[in-house]
Amino acid sequence: MAKINTQIAEALARIREKQPLIHHITNTVAIADTANLTLHLGALPIMATAAEEAAEMTAQASALVLNIGTLSSALVQSMLLAGLKANELGIPVVLDPVGAGATRLRTHTSVRLLDELGIAIVRGNEGAIGTLSGAGVKMKGVESVKGVANPAAVARTSARSWKAVVAITGKRDIVSDGKRVLGVENTHVWLQAVSGTGCLATAAIAAFAAVESNFLVATVGALAAFGLAAELAAEATGGPSSFKVALFDAIYNMTPEQLAAGARVVSL
Amino acid sequence: MAKINTQIAEALARIREKQPLIHHITNTVAIADTANLTLHLGALPIMATAAEEAAEMTAQASALVLNIGTLSSALVQSMLLAGLKANELGIPVVLDPVGAGATRLRTHTSVRLLDELGIAIVRGNEGAIGTLSGAGVKMKGVESVKGVANPAAVARTSARSWKAVVAITGKRDIVSDGKRVLGVENTHVWLQAVSGTGCLATAAIAAFAAVESNFLVATVGALAAFGLAAELAAEATGGPSSFKVALFDAIYNMTPEQLAAGARVVSL
Amino acid sequence: MAKINTQIAEALARIREKQPLIHHITNTVAIADTANLTLHLGALPIMATAAEEAAEMTAQASALVLNIGTLSSALVQSMLLAGLKANELGIPVVLDPVGAGATRLRTHTSVRLLDELGIAIVRGNEGAIGTLSGAGVKMKGVESVKGVANPAAVARTSARSWKAVVAITGKRDIVSDGKRVLGVENTHVWLQAVSGTGCLATAAIAAFAAVESNFLVATVGALAAFGLAAELAAEATGGPSSFKVALFDAIYNMTPEQLAAGARVVSL
Repeated sequence: MAKINTQIAEALARIREKQPLIHHITNTVAIADTANLTLHLGALPIMATAAEEAAEMTAQASALVLNIGTLSSALVQSMLLAGLKANELGIPVVLDPVGAGATRLRTHTSVRLLDELGIAIVRGNEGAIGTLSGAGVKMKGVESVKGVANPAAVARTSARSWKAVVAITGKRDIVSDGKRVLGVENTHVWLQAVSGTGCLATAAIAAFAAVESNFLVATVGALAAFGLAAELAAEATGGPSSFKVALFDAIYNMTPEQLAAGARVVSL
Repeated sequence: MAKINTQIAEALARIREKQPLIHHITNTVAIADTANLTLHLGALPIMATAAEEAAEMTAQASALVLNIGTLSSALVQSMLLAGLKANELGIPVVLDPVGAGATRLRTHTSVRLLDELGIAIVRGNEGAIGTLSGAGVKMKGVESVKGVANPAAVARTSARSWKAVVAITGKRDIVSDGKRVLGVENTHVWLQAVSGTGCLATAAIAAFAAVESNFLVATVGALAAFGLAAELAAEATGGPSSFKVALFDAIYNMTPEQLAAGARVVSL
Repeated sequence: MAKINTQIAEALARIREKQPLIHHITNTVAIADTANLTLHLGALPIMATAAEEAAEMTAQASALVLNIGTLSSALVQSMLLAGLKANELGIPVVLDPVGAGATRLRTHTSVRLLDELGIAIVRGNEGAIGTLSGAGVKMKGVESVKGVANPAAVARTSARSWKAVVAITGKRDIVSDGKRVLGVENTHVWLQAVSGTGCLATAAIAAFAAVESNFLVATVGALAAFGLAAELAAEATGGPSSFKVALFDAIYNMTPEQLAAGARVVSL
C-alpha cells in the first residue's frame, strides 16, 4: 500500500495548496461541524441551501455534497438543481443518504438523487447502503443495528450498479469502485459516540475529491485522514466531547508526511 | 431519598442497555448538542423534522421531544403529526415550550400542543411554565426575569391541569406529578451561561422516559444526572465553554453507581 | 487612544449590568455559537426567525442582527418585518451581508435590506463590503480572495453612502462612520480557520450597540474585545478547535479593565 499512501498524502497537500471551494447542502445537525472540518482540512466551505442560489453557488465549487440528514421538500429541490449544474460542469457530487431505509422519504429521495444525477461517490453506513443496494438490513432511526452479511460484496455490487465509488463506513471502512475493494483501518470507537461523524467523513471525501480525480483514492484518503486524526485525538482525551475538539485540531495539524506514515489501507 | 436514587441509577443503566431511539423535533440552536447529549447518555437520537416523515419516524422511537425554540408553521405541523402518532402508540411525548410568554406564536403553539396531544412531561423555565399555567411572570426574550412567587405550587397545579409531570428548571429544579413535589439540587451556575442547557435537560428527560414509565422518577433522574455532570465538569474548567465540553464528557462517563451516590433529590 | 479604550471598557461593563436582549435572525451554521457568544458577553440572545413572531420579538430587544449566511425567501421576509419594527422603535439594526457578491440572491438581498431599512452598522469581509460598495473584488464562495485596493477608503465611502458605521474585518479590522476611520489590531490568524468568526464579530457588535449609542465606539469595542479574546485564547491551545473553546471562555472571563488595557485601536 506504499503507492496509495503517497497518493493520498499528495492529495492532502493539494487541498492545502489549492483551497478548493466545497458546496455543502447538508443537515442542520452537522452543518457547523461540516464547515469547520472543511476549513481545517484546508478547503473552503460554502453552505448555501436556497433553491434560488444553489446552482449558482455550485458552479463556483470544486465539489458538491448532498446530505439528506434533515430533509425537506425545499432542500430536495435545491439538491436537484445543484446536482444538475455540477453534472453539467463536471464537478464531482458526493451523496450521503443518511437514514435511507428508516423512512420512505429518505429512501425515495436517495433513489431519486441516484437516478436523476450522476453521483461520483456515495458514503453511508451499512443500513443506508444496504437498503439502497437491496441487501437486507435492520435500521434503528439512522443507525444500522444489523448490518449486511458481506459488506465488501455490497460495496462492490452497488458501486457497479450506481457507477460510483461506494464507501460503507463503521467499525471498519470499506471502499469500492466496482473493481477493487479497499479497507481503511484507521478509526476509533469514540467516533460512534459523536453525532455527525459520518457526515464529517463525507465532507472530508468531498475535499479530497475536489483535488484527486481518482475517486477511489480520494475516498480512501479522506477516510484514512479522518480515522488517523481520531486515533491521535483519542490519545490525550477523557471522553467523546474533548475527543471531538482534539479530532478537529488533529485534522488541522495533520501533515501529508504524517498521513503517508499513518494511513492503514488494505486490499480486501 | 435512598429509594429514588436507586431507581434513577437503574434507569440510567437501562438507557445504556436498551439504547432507545429518541425522536427530537427541536430548534436549530440546540439541535447538534441535543444529538450528542442523547448519544452520550447511551440512547440513539434521530432529528427528523419534515412533515412527510415525522410520524413514520416517531413510530420507531421510544420517546418524542417537541421543542419550540425556533418555530415555523411547517414545524408545528410536523409536531402535531408526530405527537398524534406517539399518542396512538403509547410513546411518551416531552414538551419544551421555549419562550412561551415571549410571543403569541410561542404561547399559542404551546397551548395548542397541550390541548391537542397527550403530553407526558413538560419542562420549562419559570417564565414559560408560569405563562402557560396562568401565573404572573415577566419575560426577557426566552428568559424569565421575574419568576413565579411559588414555583412548587405552580408545578403541582399545572401538573394536575395538564395531566403531565411538570419540571420547572433554573437555579433549583422542581418536579411534580400533581401529587408529590420533588426538588433536584444538583446544578451549577455555568449552566445559565451556556445556550440550550434547558433544551439539553429536556433531551435527557426523554431518554430517561423512554426506559422508565414512572415519569416523575424519569424526570428527576434526568435532571439529577445532568446537574451532577455539571458539578463534576465545573471542577476542572475555567469558563463556560470548556465547562460544556467537560459536561458532555461527564455525561458519557457517568456510571449508575456515581449517579446513585451523587443525586440530591429532596421532597418539597 | 486612551479615551476610546475607556469608552469601550465602560460599554462592556454596561452589557454585563443591563443584560440587553439581542434578537438574531441568522444562519444555521453560526446560530449556536452566536447564542453562546452573546451570553458569554453578558447579553441575552433570542434567535426567533418565524415571520409570525419576528417583529414582536424585535420589539422587546435592544439590538437586531440580520445575517444572510443561509438565506431563504421566508427568512428575508422575517428580516424585513423585524427591521421595520426596529426602525420604528429606534432599535439599532446590524447587517452582516455574508457572501454578498457570491450569488445574485445574496447581493440583491443585501441591497434590498440596505435600501428598505435603516441600518446602523454593517460588518463584512472585503468581498462582501467591496461588492456592495461597487469596488472590484473577487469572491470564492463567501470568502474574498482578492480584496479591495484601499479598504479604509471603501469603508469611509460606503459608510457615507449607507449612513451607517461600516466595519471591514479580516487580517486587520477597519471601521468608519464616514468621517473617522479606525483600525483594530487585536486579532489572531486562527480566527480565519474557524467557521463563523465573522458572524460572531457581528454578534458582538450588536451587544455593544445595545448599550453604546456611538456606533463607531460600539463597533470598535466589540472587535477589540473579540480580537483580544482570540489573542488570549491562542496562547495556550494547539489548534483552531481548542482555540475556539478558549476564545469563548476568554470572552466570558474578560473584564472591562482587561479590555481597556489590551485593546489596540489606531486612527487611519
